[in-house]
Amino acid sequence: MNKSNIQLNEQGRLRHFLSIEGLSRSLLTDILNTAESFTSVTEQSVKKVPLLRGKTIVNLFFESSTRTRTTFELAAKRLSADVLNINISVSATSKGETLLDTIRNLEAMHCDMFIVRHPLSGAAHFIARFAAPHISIINAGDGRHSHPTQAMLDMFTIRRHKGEFHKLRVAIVGDISHSRVARSQIHALNILGAEEVRIIGPKTLIPAEAHTLGVHVFHDLREGLRDVDVVIMLRIQKERMEGAFLPSEHEYFQLYGLTEKKLELAKPDIIVMHPGPINRGVEIDSVVADGSRSLILQQVTHGIAVRMAVMSLAMGHSFSDTEREGS
Amino acid sequence: MNKSNIQLNEQGRLRHFLSIEGLSRSLLTDILNTAESFTSVTEQSVKKVPLLRGKTIVNLFFESSTRTRTTFELAAKRLSADVLNINISVSATSKGETLLDTIRNLEAMHCDMFIVRHPLSGAAHFIARFAAPHISIINAGDGRHSHPTQAMLDMFTIRRHKGEFHKLRVAIVGDISHSRVARSQIHALNILGAEEVRIIGPKTLIPAEAHTLGVHVFHDLREGLRDVDVVIMLRIQKERMEGAFLPSEHEYFQLYGLTEKKLELAKPDIIVMHPGPINRGVEIDSVVADGSRSLILQQVTHGIAVRMAVMSLAMGHSFSDTEREGS
Amino acid sequence: MNKSNIQLNEQGRLRHFLSIEGLSRSLLTDILNTAESFTSVTEQSVKKVPLLRGKTIVNLFFESSTRTRTTFELAAKRLSADVLNINISVSATSKGETLLDTIRNLEAMHCDMFIVRHPLSGAAHFIARFAAPHISIINAGDGRHSHPTQAMLDMFTIRRHKGEFHKLRVAIVGDISHSRVARSQIHALNILGAEEVRIIGPKTLIPAEAHTLGVHVFHDLREGLRDVDVVIMLRIQKERMEGAFLPSEHEYFQLYGLTEKKLELAKPDIIVMHPGPINRGVEIDSVVADGSRSLILQQVTHGIAVRMAVMSLAMGHSFSDTEREGS
Repeated sequence: MNKSNIQLNEQGRLRHFLSIEGLSRSLLTDILNTAESFTSVTEQSVKKVPLLRGKTIVNLFFESSTRTRTTFELAAKRLSADVLNINISVSATSKGETLLDTIRNLEAMHCDMFIVRHPLSGAAHFIARFAAPHISIINAGDGRHSHPTQAMLDMFTIRRHKGEFHKLRVAIVGDISHSRVARSQIHALNILGAEEVRIIGPKTLIPAEAHTLGVHVFHDLREGLRDVDVVIMLRIQKERMEGAFLPSEHEYFQLYGLTEKKLELAKPDIIVMHPGPINRGVEIDSVVADGSRSLILQQVTHGIAVRMAVMSLAMGHSFSDTEREGS
Repeated sequence: MNKSNIQLNEQGRLRHFLSIEGLSRSLLTDILNTAESFTSVTEQSVKKVPLLRGKTIVNLFFESSTRTRTTFELAAKRLSADVLNINISVSATSKGETLLDTIRNLEAMHCDMFIVRHPLSGAAHFIARFAAPHISIINAGDGRHSHPTQAMLDMFTIRRHKGEFHKLRVAIVGDISHSRVARSQIHALNILGAEEVRIIGPKTLIPAEAHTLGVHVFHDLREGLRDVDVVIMLRIQKERMEGAFLPSEHEYFQLYGLTEKKLELAKPDIIVMHPGPINRGVEIDSVVADGSRSLILQQVTHGIAVRMAVMSLAMGHSFSDTEREGS
Repeated sequence: MNKSNIQLNEQGRLRHFLSIEGLSRSLLTDILNTAESFTSVTEQSVKKVPLLRGKTIVNLFFESSTRTRTTFELAAKRLSADVLNINISVSATSKGETLLDTIRNLEAMHCDMFIVRHPLSGAAHFIARFAAPHISIINAGDGRHSHPTQAMLDMFTIRRHKGEFHKLRVAIVGDISHSRVARSQIHALNILGAEEVRIIGPKTLIPAEAHTLGVHVFHDLREGLRDVDVVIMLRIQKERMEGAFLPSEHEYFQLYGLTEKKLELAKPDIIVMHPGPINRGVEIDSVVADGSRSLILQQVTHGIAVRMAVMSLAMGHSFSDTEREGS
């Protein structure tokens, strides 16, 4: 049994969605196809399907994130589920009740799914390991480890605009070391068969074990962008600027900020992505962020459909169910 | 194109509701008539109509106000919309993401309407100017500028109890200078053709440009109340007491607090209104606030119907739709 | 007219649910039977009945409690009601608006039910005394006074596992003095006809008026557990440890912590309950809390059904309505 089997039920179908690592290409493709069937839902006048009516979905956030909470809440409501928002500060749980007691209580209330956001890597896995059989766990970001729904919405955006993965060269630029998003994207791109995955950033922000991830490492942005089809810029946490990791914002922008000029080195039809929120003038120039090659807002749109897909698959609905409901 | 055209679509129908200024009498009357059709909804056993089912309405509050948020949330839920509450402190947006990026993200999630509350005058207009074509903006109070749904619920209350506006003399009492509510009420009363609008308050709380607003200014409450049909008391912000604007609470009450005795100077069938929350014993005596001439709680009730009306009109439903659903 | 009549309407049916005291055995039994009909709802795939569709239920919390708020919110949503969460810090109300003005405003918005949590004993009664005729009040915990839905879910759990009350000896262990839960449990057990109710705790935590409550007092846990059918452990507030009330956590556990060894003194088929959240190793050993005699998580599950029962009865639905809908 490998580490990620916990994500699948006995029939090999999705039960939890904790990390991309260890999932098969066909399962990821299933998610993408299911999301495709939901894109029409969010565009129609009544943006609701009754697929999860009567289900209770809990946004269990141990770290506040209005943005992420909002996308999951919207996805759940558009599937007609009831949503409960619970914010728990990690310090509060430590003094009152153990994490497991909190989980056991929510299970006892017959909740069906926990969307877990936690500052510690592995928290969603931990919860999934001890959750009752009727509960599904979706990882909405755990420490530096994983943010699998973000990676899948990125894959969805790439496939919609570029088609098949095996012909694509994708570069991820910025603070790879501290990024759960990058880690999940790298796994997804490799599983889906991208021709080449590059990571680009200063030495201080590239993890030491980079060579084991199936990527090519570049420290020079111009060099790394050459012949690339897709570039994904990561958000720079401004806190890093104050430590030893990074020079000034200005210097970072000179070296690693994406500009129209630097983009000329990539393929002419390159697409530009960013998980948001963007720091204009730090990792990306406004002209690029708002330009015709930027898919940053489409990523947000697709994020709802992808989260609807993951939720409904984890609740036991097959692609064909969702296609019937979505159309 | 005048400043307020942004509120209307090409057919001259309501698209955003940002301020009363510049709207026509027939449009304001449409809102009042539509609200009338909704009053029955909030009185029936199942207080819901399916008019906005599948729509996503965002309470986008840059200033916290449980009271206002609650009325919009209730109105939206009674129209069967999904509601998302987002509180953003203005300081937080300045460091993370620009206001426009926040707006673009919510648009990309296919939200349909933003209810905007903001401490800066003009914020709702700003957002409306840059919003995507499919989004409607409702101003739920911006700085000292405007609070149009409050003004319309006041007009609704006046019309229900006094009939036609052209025979009415209305006095607004208190801190006119700092009141977005007063500004919106004055515009609404003038557009709807009230015979006379009076503003009453100490010189420090009457705006310098008062003469341009189409009102008569009084500094003596007794004088200003003479022959009045409707009196609207404004809430005194206690912070003003500490500055140079106002004398003590006690002295303010002596001069401008509404009592039964002072009311004797007005018409015998005068009605008393207040946008709430009231400061008992400061701008209004409890005997008056709880007395038979007070419509303060009816204003709250009508506030739900008026907000349902504005929301459904802005989402493209005509008065006849709402009448059919509401009945 | 006795003190508790305010809870009943003219037909003697439940209108408010404020305290157990003064309610009849048949009314408590009605609540238990109605809850029984709802247990199936929370176990079915679509966990919703349309009984309170179009009703507006307000969680009016003057003291924050995620746990309690969550259970009421879930119960309300599973009855298809709309839920509004309002948190008011007691300090905030004192400066802005009076409590009654807040209540009057929510009434004017045609809300149907207030779930009230308040740090002061008697707050829910106070609100019920002044509420409009169309409003029902449910007490979700007021000071040290009462927590009636918690007591009823405990009764439900006992009846499900032990059958009739008249043969049962029940012990409540811990800080009886400061516990609204204990007070409500004692009343419920006596009204339902339990053979014997015992309270067990150090002298500093047993109220002086204990002898008037219809209980037997024990200061020695071993002695008090003898021949008991049901033991209910109370949560120790760690703040008490710092004052004069209690020795150290360690010493408390030695004397009053429930262990497998101490349980041997009770009946062999004893059941163990706790209102949660539990302090493992303080009032209860983990082996007991997680053991086969513990019903702690079933209590949580039953809490949803019991709250659904109380809500629907207070809104005028009879047991037979709920049975039809629930089945």
